[in-house]
Amino acid sequence: MAPFITKFEPYEPEEYVVDKKNGTKSPARLEKIAIVGSGSWGTALARVAALNAAEREGFDPEVRIWVREHEVPGRGKLTDIFNRTHQNERYLPNVDLPENLVAVPSLKETVRNASLILIVVPHQYLPGILEELKEPGLISSRARAISAIKGVEVVIQKDEQGNNNTAEIYTYPSVIEKELGIPCTALGGANIALDVGRGEFCETTIGVPSAKDAALWHAVFDGPTFRVHPIEDVAGVSLSGALKNVVALAAGFVDGMGLGGNTKAAILRIGLLEMSTFTLEFFPGSSPLTFSHHSAGVADLITTSFGGRNRKCAEAFIKSKPQYSGEQQGKSFEQLEQELLNGQKLQGTLTSQEVFEFLEARGRLEGYPLFEKVYRIAFEEMDPKRLFEDL
Amino acid sequence: MAPFITKFEPYEPEEYVVDKKNGTKSPARLEKIAIVGSGSWGTALARVAALNAAEREGFDPEVRIWVREHEVPGRGKLTDIFNRTHQNERYLPNVDLPENLVAVPSLKETVRNASLILIVVPHQYLPGILEELKEPGLISSRARAISAIKGVEVVIQKDEQGNNNTAEIYTYPSVIEKELGIPCTALGGANIALDVGRGEFCETTIGVPSAKDAALWHAVFDGPTFRVHPIEDVAGVSLSGALKNVVALAAGFVDGMGLGGNTKAAILRIGLLEMSTFTLEFFPGSSPLTFSHHSAGVADLITTSFGGRNRKCAEAFIKSKPQYSGEQQGKSFEQLEQELLNGQKLQGTLTSQEVFEFLEARGRLEGYPLFEKVYRIAFEEMDPKRLFEDL
Repeated sequence: MAPFITKFEPYEPEEYVVDKKNGTKSPARLEKIAIVGSGSWGTALARVAALNAAEREGFDPEVRIWVREHEVPGRGKLTDIFNRTHQNERYLPNVDLPENLVAVPSLKETVRNASLILIVVPHQYLPGILEELKEPGLISSRARAISAIKGVEVVIQKDEQGNNNTAEIYTYPSVIEKELGIPCTALGGANIALDVGRGEFCETTIGVPSAKDAALWHAVFDGPTFRVHPIEDVAGVSLSGALKNVVALAAGFVDGMGLGGNTKAAILRIGLLEMSTFTLEFFPGSSPLTFSHHSAGVADLITTSFGGRNRKCAEAFIKSKPQYSGEQQGKSFEQLEQELLNGQKLQGTLTSQEVFEFLEARGRLEGYPLFEKVYRIAFEEMDPKRLFEDL
Repeated sequence: MAPFITKFEPYEPEEYVVDKKNGTKSPARLEKIAIVGSGSWGTALARVAALNAAEREGFDPEVRIWVREHEVPGRGKLTDIFNRTHQNERYLPNVDLPENLVAVPSLKETVRNASLILIVVPHQYLPGILEELKEPGLISSRARAISAIKGVEVVIQKDEQGNNNTAEIYTYPSVIEKELGIPCTALGGANIALDVGRGEFCETTIGVPSAKDAALWHAVFDGPTFRVHPIEDVAGVSLSGALKNVVALAAGFVDGMGLGGNTKAAILRIGLLEMSTFTLEFFPGSSPLTFSHHSAGVADLITTSFGGRNRKCAEAFIKSKPQYSGEQQGKSFEQLEQELLNGQKLQGTLTSQEVFEFLEARGRLEGYPLFEKVYRIAFEEMDPKRLFEDL
């Protein structure tokens, strides 16, 4: 990890063709961007990419975004509404999208001929999507992918007696690389989608070791209010995006118990250390600087723990408990996801389960008391006040 | 800075005397705690120390706290009210203080015979206090001090033409050591006073390289909901406590402009890096880990930037500006301090001025664009929207 920050020259098309008649030159080939996922974060990133594609030399201005089709009662097909109003009314309301961002109902048609593919879906949907994208010939071997998925893939193999045998953990960029056979980098940062949609100043981190690819992805996303910093640590960016949601659950528990800023800051500090320690333990090529210095680390954790959906549901989870609500029974995260998230998915609870199972199978729970307690409070009825024990 | 975390054994009295009659042994000498400063933070720390002094072997249970005397109309002297009600009604309302915490109107009587002196006053008051404490014989040469002061001392010497000649910066622990001739360590962390007063879970960092002193200060302050971590880096703990208030002003500017969590997290990330870089540049023995790993660093910055008084006044400062308020003229920080802080002092604005003058005199402003802009927005009418330029 020598230089850590990926050094790159600003993007320029590799080859030009010259028009013999009038001597003008133009890029030999245009980069074509596809967005797989149209939730709030996917749409916000698609907006940034489409604004850049329309302006920058070397890019096909049409950016395609995959929108699952359905009929909106009395108004027609969802993709037609998207392409007529240039808004994603459900997931990114009141944000005007560029006209060159085009909703496409077919996943395959979205990515066909694309050279730059952003994958930004709830991680539970990824296996089915990759299955479809693996169709031979669909994705060019020259294409590149970038993952903004928050999560990890944990595979636990049991022996014949049903005991845990081996446990492995993979980042989504590595899963995508393996399944699609193209290089995949990672994007993460302090980026609540609605605020990015409104064009408020923010930063993001891209984990991309190749200087050439760093230049390309920088050109796709960087802008005056969306500052992109490429670093070499793909696994760190990806893991941080997953694990911060587990810490955000703890932050929500603190809010739910009505505790103040000191307690929350202590939980964030301890959580950031567990995120960094976990990543360095299981992905030894990573850098602690990803967590301490970059938007994908400390800044994303702060934003998510004060404003994100995991925090919100975790607060409601605690407040619904009998000792706080006076009701007979608390609510489960499944219930709260349906009540509070308007169809969005919660990533932190799933990641918490996966990380817990992985650490348990590896016999390493003792190294991560905060991760362990978040799981036990969320799924095993542990008293939330015990969050602070043994930290 | 080899091990960085200060290793120590739990505190025990050094010597015992044995009662020949019944064979019981007791410490030869009791540690006596004095608190210089009775604002909200001083009172909250005094509460923690007095609870420990009452319970732990080797401590004189009486903890003295210096309270500036005045007559409260119709109710008598302030120290009498404090000692009768066991509350500091103005600065730490609704918090019951231990009965062994005794308010003393004389500064000299507060520290006489004390072996452990906590100094926790707004930094503008320190010179006068040190002048009084320097009286020969008043403070024992065996005493130890700890500073919870937020600020730095900047000394700029000008030549005969009035040009800047030299600029020096000192931490308060080093100033106190020099003036009083006793060792001084630093305390800092994510500790909003009212929440500490309520006994909510939090952490704090003590910069104290000596293992013996670490054990002593740990015994004074550590408790089940106030976790003390000693580290070797005195300057880092002290500087972080000062500089975080400058970043908190920037966070307040962001809030005042009505921007969201992404922008604030970006400002915190950049601010944390400037805090760490500044400290390492001018106090080369410090450690970046103080900022990235400890409560005095990242956690204190988070708490202060979401809940502190500097953030609050900075938000009001922006909102009072003509472009946001519609009024003819905005308010100055002096005005806002009087309107909003109920007699408490603002530390960030003073620190911002001092750091700006120091960096300007050293020709190093370009290395710290956020610190520079906070100063220019606060004192030179710079448009707050320019906060994000060149970061």
